[in-house]
Amino acid sequence: MIPKEFLDAKKQNRLDDLFHFLRFPSVSAKSEHKKDILACAEWLAAHLNKIGIKSRIMPTGGHPVVYGEVISSPKKVTILYYGHYDVQPPEPLDLWKTTPFEPLVENGYIIARGATDDKGQLMTHVKAIEAYLATKTDLPVNVKFLIEGEEEAGSENLEKFIKNNAALLKADIVVISDSGQYGKNRPAVTYGLRGLAFVEVKVTGPNRDLHSGSFGGSIANPINVLAKVISLLHDENGKVAIDGFYDDVLPLTDWERRQFAGLPFDENEYLSKTGARGLFGDKDYTVLEQIWGRPTLDVNGITGGYQGEGGKTIIPSWASCKITMRLVADQDPNDICEKIEKYIKKICPDYVYCEVKKHGGARGVVVPTDGPWLEAAGKAIKTGFGVEPVFIKEGGSIPVVGTFKEVLGIDTLLLGWGQSDDNAHSPNERFALADFERGCYSALALIDELSKTKG
Amino acid sequence: MIPKEFLDAKKQNRLDDLFHFLRFPSVSAKSEHKKDILACAEWLAAHLNKIGIKSRIMPTGGHPVVYGEVISSPKKVTILYYGHYDVQPPEPLDLWKTTPFEPLVENGYIIARGATDDKGQLMTHVKAIEAYLATKTDLPVNVKFLIEGEEEAGSENLEKFIKNNAALLKADIVVISDSGQYGKNRPAVTYGLRGLAFVEVKVTGPNRDLHSGSFGGSIANPINVLAKVISLLHDENGKVAIDGFYDDVLPLTDWERRQFAGLPFDENEYLSKTGARGLFGDKDYTVLEQIWGRPTLDVNGITGGYQGEGGKTIIPSWASCKITMRLVADQDPNDICEKIEKYIKKICPDYVYCEVKKHGGARGVVVPTDGPWLEAAGKAIKTGFGVEPVFIKEGGSIPVVGTFKEVLGIDTLLLGWGQSDDNAHSPNERFALADFERGCYSALALIDELSKTKG
Repeated sequence: MIPKEFLDAKKQNRLDDLFHFLRFPSVSAKSEHKKDILACAEWLAAHLNKIGIKSRIMPTGGHPVVYGEVISSPKKVTILYYGHYDVQPPEPLDLWKTTPFEPLVENGYIIARGATDDKGQLMTHVKAIEAYLATKTDLPVNVKFLIEGEEEAGSENLEKFIKNNAALLKADIVVISDSGQYGKNRPAVTYGLRGLAFVEVKVTGPNRDLHSGSFGGSIANPINVLAKVISLLHDENGKVAIDGFYDDVLPLTDWERRQFAGLPFDENEYLSKTGARGLFGDKDYTVLEQIWGRPTLDVNGITGGYQGEGGKTIIPSWASCKITMRLVADQDPNDICEKIEKYIKKICPDYVYCEVKKHGGARGVVVPTDGPWLEAAGKAIKTGFGVEPVFIKEGGSIPVVGTFKEVLGIDTLLLGWGQSDDNAHSPNERFALADFERGCYSALALIDELSKTKG
Repeated sequence: MIPKEFLDAKKQNRLDDLFHFLRFPSVSAKSEHKKDILACAEWLAAHLNKIGIKSRIMPTGGHPVVYGEVISSPKKVTILYYGHYDVQPPEPLDLWKTTPFEPLVENGYIIARGATDDKGQLMTHVKAIEAYLATKTDLPVNVKFLIEGEEEAGSENLEKFIKNNAALLKADIVVISDSGQYGKNRPAVTYGLRGLAFVEVKVTGPNRDLHSGSFGGSIANPINVLAKVISLLHDENGKVAIDGFYDDVLPLTDWERRQFAGLPFDENEYLSKTGARGLFGDKDYTVLEQIWGRPTLDVNGITGGYQGEGGKTIIPSWASCKITMRLVADQDPNDICEKIEKYIKKICPDYVYCEVKKHGGARGVVVPTDGPWLEAAGKAIKTGFGVEPVFIKEGGSIPVVGTFKEVLGIDTLLLGWGQSDDNAHSPNERFALADFERGCYSALALIDELSKTKG
């Protein structure tokens, strides 16, 4: 029997295993579920061991990591699979049509907390490897699994764990299935993520709130000054005006722009989903290019002076704001923090005090589009889904991907089998049975395709 | 006996009367003092009646007004004295060296809550008139007293009272002693006050906070937009950039600028009192000119997005701010509100929603410097204090002065006998005995001087 035949034959078995996995209320954010988290990790390690993936539970400062591996030859490509066995809290319970931790299949959907995020998606890779091991087919790659239990609670201990176990986790490529397709029957390879840099800015004027009658017009108002500073962070075309901000930005390639332009994307629909009055942004780029391929600067919060009902005639003592910048490869968050600090110090007038707190951030990441990884991923998806995947980026950040790149020097393939309407983090989370199945077959093909990338 | 001799002879008596007045804990802000307020009003009306000023208590929606008058001829100048018999709360009590409502004289100062604000200052005018009436000297003016009991609680019922009693209050000039001298032994005539206009501005982008990764760069950020709007409210020279903002501003006259320039004013000392890093303002004007003679625009408070600890990567749904403008004569607060609304609507980009709430305000006021009033006041002060007064303006607003001008069409003379270190509103409020005395003699001279302004 070849692995594909095993997958063909064992549809119900792998669904049973997934259901078992889904029954653990492994809610990482709530301390009352600590025992459930541990029970889930123990079951998962035991299950991996049972099917031939040598696994163990490894402690962290928080919930443990389940680590597993099948290493047969240093000559083979080594894949590091990352996933998480913890889930979001199921509340509000009254909005569920079912019981969150009692999975069932209804109208072609697996319905349960964790169905898509991330137990169901993670299981596709486990089951693909099982198909090799169960049929005693030579596994053409080495595999490692890093499955954490704190993803939904901020992955607070993950970076340290990766640093402490860098040798153990050494691999050629990371594979993560924790995202989504671009649309119905439109599987996607996400080959780029934006990073982040975070600063806080505080402008201080007088040492206390002053009477705006007695002092207004001669003592600068920190809110007015901060507003001026913020206004100078963009130029009149909506580009970020910080000196050197774009120096390390990798330009979108022609291939990327063609790829994005070929995707179905309705700007009006996108706009109407936000309720905003109009689109905004750098006019040299389409919306998809803006959110996937260009860095941004947003003030996330601002505060200063009197904010209650009615008025108060003061010159406030200070005003502050929080600014995050979404970065793209190859911008360095620390370098960007230095640049914004320098720029703000330059533009802020000297009749106020100005403080910039730099919090660093995460690099944007991009998998080289001309290397072997994307091609392998594309072929595997074609095999599993029967359609060519689209190559997309994501405007948000997945910090672990940056950590893999920075700490281990490894690129990541983000192959999501889910859909944006799978209700991840919401009541009635679901995962189309068909997507689970096609995910398993894609995962199987991926092993074969990635094995060919070496030598 | 002529009135001045009466003043000379009755020093202790008038101090006794003032002390009686000061013993009432007429704290208007606290309901527990309602009885004390009423007792104080009743004593005051009785005292005025006793000395020959025909008085009565008149109800308002809150604490009553004490109204008194001596009318002898329609040919005489009619003076309307305004003052208040209520006081600030005395707390914190442990910071008082004495008992707030048990007045005493120590080191030449009358110490008590209300000593300067406003019982002591008000009493100077009462005692000047008493000197005429007690000596049966023909009072060369008609006098009216409007003494309210809610000044320290916002004068909420005063405007309505004035409107409802416009005929009763008809006069040629209003006299108020509820402010201060410019410095030690430097009595002042305050001939101008700034007004106020108040608006609130709200910029709305998306209908909820958005993920700054998924939407950043294509959906405008309301904080960034509001900051831009605020930054455009001033030009690069610190002047207000609203179209037509200065249209109705009466320019400072050469006489005023000379007058201000002659005043002792240390800009460094002024700056160091605020703790601000540097002075700011329209470079075409000195600090005194800026705060006394020019309009301003200050953001008093701003709020939007996430303001807690740490970061939150959102595009916030909205941002808002409170803006007050200090106005000078002849700016109209409603007109200014219209102008700022129009200007903000013009500059605010059309990819956000923008709302301007107009709250109106108060006009700035100025007593004509070339009319008879200032000259009369100057001469009276010269008589009472033995030095020439300085002519100053005040950067803040005293709404009742605007009301007298708008509702009754009457100018106001602000003749303050207090000092800035008299601790008005603070523990150990005081009033120099010498200033009380010189105030009485100035008030006496003022009657004579003002009587000459008619005909």
